[in-house]
Amino acid sequence: MNLGLLGGTGVEGRGLALRLGAAGANVVVGSRTVERAASAAAQYNQALGSSRIQGAGNLEMVAAADIIFVAVPFDRAVDAVQSILPATRAGQVFVDVTVPLTFAEGRVDYVEVPQKSAAEQLATVLPAGVDLVGAFKELPAHVLGDLGTPLDCDVLVCGDSSAARERVMGVIRMIPTLRPVDAGQLSSARVIERMTMLAVQLNRRYRSKAARFRILGI
Amino acid sequence: MNLGLLGGTGVEGRGLALRLGAAGANVVVGSRTVERAASAAAQYNQALGSSRIQGAGNLEMVAAADIIFVAVPFDRAVDAVQSILPATRAGQVFVDVTVPLTFAEGRVDYVEVPQKSAAEQLATVLPAGVDLVGAFKELPAHVLGDLGTPLDCDVLVCGDSSAARERVMGVIRMIPTLRPVDAGQLSSARVIERMTMLAVQLNRRYRSKAARFRILGI
Repeated sequence: MNLGLLGGTGVEGRGLALRLGAAGANVVVGSRTVERAASAAAQYNQALGSSRIQGAGNLEMVAAADIIFVAVPFDRAVDAVQSILPATRAGQVFVDVTVPLTFAEGRVDYVEVPQKSAAEQLATVLPAGVDLVGAFKELPAHVLGDLGTPLDCDVLVCGDSSAARERVMGVIRMIPTLRPVDAGQLSSARVIERMTMLAVQLNRRYRSKAARFRILGI
Repeated sequence: MNLGLLGGTGVEGRGLALRLGAAGANVVVGSRTVERAASAAAQYNQALGSSRIQGAGNLEMVAAADIIFVAVPFDRAVDAVQSILPATRAGQVFVDVTVPLTFAEGRVDYVEVPQKSAAEQLATVLPAGVDLVGAFKELPAHVLGDLGTPLDCDVLVCGDSSAARERVMGVIRMIPTLRPVDAGQLSSARVIERMTMLAVQLNRRYRSKAARFRILGI
């Protein structure tokens, strides 16, 4: 199984590549240019002491991957996915890790999306046969990218296909100390994305960069 | 300091009365009739082996209390608070523990409130000088009422007055193994109330009654 990262050269892509690569997954870092993808892959391999991570243009990455993480910023996600649609095929799963937040002039704002969540918006772009799952939304990229910090928390997984959710939860179980929690339908992204906003606000109030969630009692 | 429970004879009121009473607080259970309040208080005292919990009509309870927990179901909260307005005074803090959920025919639904959260709706009813704080919203009443179960989790506290938030957090700190987390403005109730909906859904999926949250990294 190959995991692809759409927008794999950013902060979120780096965190996913490092955690998934360290867990032994085959990762293809995608970028709009092959050169940037190859450069990022080389950096990640160096950090991991591996040669497991490859770089590719986004179209080539999508053609090679079974599960593709959409790791571009929220306001570029729809365009980025539309640009790679020709390379998609039935049976693939896209994982939306974006959150509808804007950061400007020192403040963070939650963006009200007509479809009620970034995940539900992105789902409208994908063709039939390609499933969308939301995951990693409420996990801080800062913590994800710091391999020295045990994650030690949960990640909420939502999507309208239970089979697709289960595939993504299987990938998440590869990462030590991270537990996938099945949050049901894609509409659960409405609360999960707001939990990210809450985590950002808690980070500011408590002077942290690492606020994240664990669910007890289940 | 006296703590009052508006709607103290229901499941949520019982849980709050037991946990706060066990923590040594002076609790006045309010009800529409003095008899029901006295009966509930007697039951709670028996469970605690104390005589610390008193019962009173709702108006008398509000007149006697410094902090009043609104523990009636969501769809009765506005009416219940309006009915006791004559007994309020400046400096009191009301704590909204309600969540905008309906349970009917085996399903749970999230109610979209024009003010965007139950807490913000209730805030419109209170007079100037009386602050509203949201708390205990995402904590299951089932767990709250079972004194044998350590809570071992966080409770998110929101409100537009930081002084009022701090007073309520002080009360929460009396309860062993429960940590108050300062979630900022009252508008944070929009995410907190949805987290309750998520917890209800997780309880069904994972066959539990105890899903609750802990925030790591802060």
